[in-house]
Amino acid sequence: MIKTDILIIGAGPTGLFAVFEAGLLKLKCHLIDALPQPGGQCSEIYPKKPIYDIPGFPEVLAGDLVTNLMEQIKPFEPGFTLGERAQTIDKQGDGSFIVTTNKGTKHHAPVVVIAGGLGSFEPRKPPIANIAKFEDKGVAYIIREPEVYRDKKVVIAGGGDSALDWAIYLADVASEVSLVHRRNDFRGALDSVEKVEELSKIGKINLITNAEVTDLQGEDELKNVVITHKASASEKEIKETDYFIPLFGLSPKLGPIADWGLEIEKNAIKVDNAYDYQTNIPGVYAIGDVNTYPGKLKLILCGFHEAAIMCQSAYQRIFPDKKYVMKYTTVSGVSGFDGSKKEAKKEVVKSIN
Amino acid sequence: MIKTDILIIGAGPTGLFAVFEAGLLKLKCHLIDALPQPGGQCSEIYPKKPIYDIPGFPEVLAGDLVTNLMEQIKPFEPGFTLGERAQTIDKQGDGSFIVTTNKGTKHHAPVVVIAGGLGSFEPRKPPIANIAKFEDKGVAYIIREPEVYRDKKVVIAGGGDSALDWAIYLADVASEVSLVHRRNDFRGALDSVEKVEELSKIGKINLITNAEVTDLQGEDELKNVVITHKASASEKEIKETDYFIPLFGLSPKLGPIADWGLEIEKNAIKVDNAYDYQTNIPGVYAIGDVNTYPGKLKLILCGFHEAAIMCQSAYQRIFPDKKYVMKYTTVSGVSGFDGSKKEAKKEVVKSIN
Repeated sequence: MIKTDILIIGAGPTGLFAVFEAGLLKLKCHLIDALPQPGGQCSEIYPKKPIYDIPGFPEVLAGDLVTNLMEQIKPFEPGFTLGERAQTIDKQGDGSFIVTTNKGTKHHAPVVVIAGGLGSFEPRKPPIANIAKFEDKGVAYIIREPEVYRDKKVVIAGGGDSALDWAIYLADVASEVSLVHRRNDFRGALDSVEKVEELSKIGKINLITNAEVTDLQGEDELKNVVITHKASASEKEIKETDYFIPLFGLSPKLGPIADWGLEIEKNAIKVDNAYDYQTNIPGVYAIGDVNTYPGKLKLILCGFHEAAIMCQSAYQRIFPDKKYVMKYTTVSGVSGFDGSKKEAKKEVVKSIN
Repeated sequence: MIKTDILIIGAGPTGLFAVFEAGLLKLKCHLIDALPQPGGQCSEIYPKKPIYDIPGFPEVLAGDLVTNLMEQIKPFEPGFTLGERAQTIDKQGDGSFIVTTNKGTKHHAPVVVIAGGLGSFEPRKPPIANIAKFEDKGVAYIIREPEVYRDKKVVIAGGGDSALDWAIYLADVASEVSLVHRRNDFRGALDSVEKVEELSKIGKINLITNAEVTDLQGEDELKNVVITHKASASEKEIKETDYFIPLFGLSPKLGPIADWGLEIEKNAIKVDNAYDYQTNIPGVYAIGDVNTYPGKLKLILCGFHEAAIMCQSAYQRIFPDKKYVMKYTTVSGVSGFDGSKKEAKKEVVKSIN
């Protein structure tokens, strides 16, 4: 059982910044995210895209924003449960909550904060009748640990950045990499497309375009991948395949959270924006793109504000008898749980005689 | 008469960022500030202090934050009325407002946003009986344009950073600089104190410690500055002085805005935080440290959020019949009024045949 003060579901920019604001109040945080790394959409969907509306940054790459936030919260030593989706929530007799992931990891906290963005990103699955049968038995939708594929025979499907980048990466790791795409046109960074073309010419990537994977064969585990060429409708098998990895992008879904008894409106969680961004379940807050209220803007900068306000209310819930006196970082500095201290600049007093 | 879409009173970080959010909605902004430069407290009071709680900046100097914000809003070409204090507001028949400064400059806009921070910073004045008589006739509390003092005889009073820095600067500009301080102890950056000591030794600054300016003499204009040594109570005159500049810091005051008919609570303006940060006067909003509502936090990051939300409501007020469809800067880029365009990164589509 993982225990913490504030359990944050979603490790995007809003969830990450909540760790900082909680840390200033000496509250510990633990984050759960379905993706294998922190940063949410910014890391997974558009790390190389510039954002222009983060206050104080005329331009910042989404991936760099996440890197900066991770550095900013480091002194507060947040815990992470990554690659797992928050599945169930159980209220305890004392008003605290136990949140269990799809892999059974249990988390216990007096306050739960949903910072789930547009929802957990579920992989788009190709319409292959028996694909579910081979999930975790040769079929993977997200590459978490590339070393798993060392010296294995791998078939990747897709025509976007993710498919291109992983085909390039695994060309040096796997024993054989096939990249199957239903068109000739690839939609990704130019240098990635050119690199795949080059690796295909020297035989390091087996490039199969205008084709789709239409069937998977095997007993307990994946064995053969059947590919159908679109023009000729001719079939071909890639035999003795270890892994089939369709990378068709992720689509956001509110997911199991939708069944937690929260008031939902237009696929978002209703909160009290007039006070503390709490949901209809006392002790459960929702901040960032996942929430809704009159005038809501789905902007990262709004999530930051909501995180700061929420933390004050969470503090009151955890310590109903304490009164928190706001201190400014410019005056009091930042003291991390790791013992680090950022000092506010002291004035020097010096005499001239 | 200066005309604009949104008239912003206060050019601190919150007021500046409002220009950006308004710009995304194609609304023009003009800012009024009592201080001679944008940035509010960040520029005037603590430009060299690090701030640790701006999201995405593990550490940023207050002055650098302002520089970044100025760069971020540059494409939207905001107007500035600096060194003047917003004095009166007059509602027009069509619901728009005319705001006049203490120097008589008039501004006309359909929406007024008060982003006044802790108030306008009024200089702390030394208790010299007739000082008011010489204001703008030899006595200045803020140095706006140092060239005014070229080849002039100047007396500065004070023992903080401002007095130290300007004494050092003017030592090379004025014909004579005296620095009067009531103690031996200076409270400022170590290198500034040491520099003053050095300039005093080589006769470039006439340093008078343990002393106070106690009288000013002159007919229409300032002529003699009378200084009393504390220990001996002996008096001495600095004759034919052109300027006396007491730099005793600034203290924030809500000022004339307090008389605009706004609902005030604890020296702050009450706003509707459940919707759009509007005050009790329709069309007048208050954002940042100047406002108050249940759970209010006086944090720069909260001002940023309030600015974004306010702009949506201001847009509705200015264009009641238009429906604004939110666009993300990551997708649509930023088009400045100066013709500049920051492009959102396009996906490349390339065929491999």
